[in-house]
Amino acid sequence: MAKLPTELHRVEDIAYAEYLFDKFYGVGSTGSGGVTRLGYTEVEDEMHKVFQEIGEEDGYTYLTDEVGNSYLSNSESEHYYLIASHLDSVIEGGRYDGVAGVIAGLLVLHWIQEQNLTIPVRVGAFRCEESSNFGKCTIGSGLITNETYKHDIGEAISKAGKTLAEIFKERGLSLQPKRIRGVKQYLELHIEQGKVLEEFGDKLGIVSTIAGPKRFMLHIIGQAEHSGATPMDMRSDALCGAAEIINEIEDIGREESIWKSVVTVGVVQNEPNALNVIPGEVTLGVDMRGINTDSLERMEKRMKNAAKKICEKRGLTFYKEKISEIPPIDMSREMQESLSRVAMKLKLPHRIMMSGAGHDAMSFAHICDTAMLFIPCDKGVSHNKREFATIESICDGAIVMFEYLKGECQ
Amino acid sequence: MAKLPTELHRVEDIAYAEYLFDKFYGVGSTGSGGVTRLGYTEVEDEMHKVFQEIGEEDGYTYLTDEVGNSYLSNSESEHYYLIASHLDSVIEGGRYDGVAGVIAGLLVLHWIQEQNLTIPVRVGAFRCEESSNFGKCTIGSGLITNETYKHDIGEAISKAGKTLAEIFKERGLSLQPKRIRGVKQYLELHIEQGKVLEEFGDKLGIVSTIAGPKRFMLHIIGQAEHSGATPMDMRSDALCGAAEIINEIEDIGREESIWKSVVTVGVVQNEPNALNVIPGEVTLGVDMRGINTDSLERMEKRMKNAAKKICEKRGLTFYKEKISEIPPIDMSREMQESLSRVAMKLKLPHRIMMSGAGHDAMSFAHICDTAMLFIPCDKGVSHNKREFATIESICDGAIVMFEYLKGECQ
Repeated sequence: MAKLPTELHRVEDIAYAEYLFDKFYGVGSTGSGGVTRLGYTEVEDEMHKVFQEIGEEDGYTYLTDEVGNSYLSNSESEHYYLIASHLDSVIEGGRYDGVAGVIAGLLVLHWIQEQNLTIPVRVGAFRCEESSNFGKCTIGSGLITNETYKHDIGEAISKAGKTLAEIFKERGLSLQPKRIRGVKQYLELHIEQGKVLEEFGDKLGIVSTIAGPKRFMLHIIGQAEHSGATPMDMRSDALCGAAEIINEIEDIGREESIWKSVVTVGVVQNEPNALNVIPGEVTLGVDMRGINTDSLERMEKRMKNAAKKICEKRGLTFYKEKISEIPPIDMSREMQESLSRVAMKLKLPHRIMMSGAGHDAMSFAHICDTAMLFIPCDKGVSHNKREFATIESICDGAIVMFEYLKGECQ
Repeated sequence: MAKLPTELHRVEDIAYAEYLFDKFYGVGSTGSGGVTRLGYTEVEDEMHKVFQEIGEEDGYTYLTDEVGNSYLSNSESEHYYLIASHLDSVIEGGRYDGVAGVIAGLLVLHWIQEQNLTIPVRVGAFRCEESSNFGKCTIGSGLITNETYKHDIGEAISKAGKTLAEIFKERGLSLQPKRIRGVKQYLELHIEQGKVLEEFGDKLGIVSTIAGPKRFMLHIIGQAEHSGATPMDMRSDALCGAAEIINEIEDIGREESIWKSVVTVGVVQNEPNALNVIPGEVTLGVDMRGINTDSLERMEKRMKNAAKKICEKRGLTFYKEKISEIPPIDMSREMQESLSRVAMKLKLPHRIMMSGAGHDAMSFAHICDTAMLFIPCDKGVSHNKREFATIESICDGAIVMFEYLKGECQ
């Protein structure tokens, strides 16, 4: 008789999870060891095609929605549990971010089938969770829940220079889809993308709150002049001003880290970016996250004041553009408690923790009970080709979700 | 009887110079008011075609050399005076940088013809003086004088991603040309690209020394991680380190400015340059100039030490790459003195001064007596669409060169 899946690390489960991981492995591989699978590109399409193939192999129903998200369903029931994550990646990213959650969902479907249970589940794969292509995150889940995005998202421009509206038109998708229906509860497993679990030696994190990102573009305008013929005291160097602002923002983030806030300047555009010209214009892209709204507000204010002061002192022009703001959002307390009980029963060391990263779960928390599980990833490295998590960890999280659903459907 | 050209601002001279300026005007125009005429591109070719047309209109002989430079000659003499500058520009640059010197040469040719003099002159238009396309400056004049560039220049890569060697092959040019012969003396007029003449109310600068650029790429390597999930105290943010280095370099430049040295970080490459990833790698392009070699050496040393220290403190990896070094070079003292006497006779307020910018004259100073004249440009602005000089100033400089040559050939 086959062992119960509640037994951790069954050889056949590990093998099946590895099989699934390998199916996605080669898509969007870069020469350097990572993957680039930008949202709403052909590479992401290929990921969804692999997802569809897996569904066909196992006899699930494949569905898509008006914004290009994919689902595999084990039931015709109108009400179902949705276990989902995303299949896109950042530029030169890793192979676990997003994919781990989809594999976990497929494991749950697999065990339901194996044990002949009647738990109605859909496994979802969302489009374009990362902001790397359009500067906006969770586009697929945000649109289908009608929550995050309203009118202006169509104007977002891809790395290749097309608007999302143009891309949607080419693909026959809709920027005003009907809201997804029938989701009883939403569950998502994701790699932590941080070092907290590893440092505490925990196997699993149960997310309490997701810190939504607040994003800005800071524009710093000086005077582009000849780098050789302009004395140091006659310059309005936009990059020197921007550099001072970057370090000031870093200091603000360090001071506010007692509230678990973080702030990052991830993007720099320097114009004209030539060796013989003093930089005339610099744009900085800033990403701010936290679960304490006071701290978030304070960071924004302090950043603005510091940048203004630096630019005034240097004779530079400054303006700030807020490009997105997603407030921190709580996960379902009941689900957190039930998941914690399951983990305890399975003797999995775990902790309740916040998420500094944004996730598709944010979109669903607005429309249904939502929970998120984190699994450890090596040294906390993510959004990087060295990203690594174990297949065993994915199975651990999947078993917790499976046992939780069994409990719900008794 | 026509007035002598030694009379400043003759209506017909201004009109002719304006005619020449207009011929080049539209080539490479950008929407925003400036021009982009990168070296060894089709836009630069178009500039040389206009130059050829002007020569045909006025009956000069058109010549080209093995590296694509163009010349107009009024004589079959094997020995001649070369008056030259360049026809390329930086990205979004102005219309006077380089072109002013070519126009001045054409004015001198015109007056020699008008007055039936037998002064053998060639007006030269060099290729790719700006480093904007290949990260290397004075390519056309450096190659044809066999001075500045030896073997590795062919590996330089254009903005469009081709090597100079590939481009030369396509164009039937040679990276090992025979050295230019017959140049008795080299003269170049150029806009100052600084504010010294304007601030002192001078009409003309006679260059004593050209400060050759020393150029570096600084590589700063940290760890690309998720911007939301990595606490502030667990980061190795390459951009924060780079920002500190940029401001440190600025301070070094300010302190060394007493020696007329300048230093500029003109280029920033930030990887992966995404809002949700902590920058993992930053490359800074640094341009250092001065006429005091001690100061230049000190700046290089201080920059390296400061960058190393900052990177050590932050757990970042640092390495420095020197991409070019052209030592300061003196212009001919005899020519400076003669040109100064001519300017005095013409009652043109002028000054002997250094050049912070590099010029084609650097290449020729190695192989023949060389002189450079500067004319004022509005607020010192150059390498910018707002670059402006008056046609009158170009004529002033041209008359000084013409009178100087008349004196030499008496």
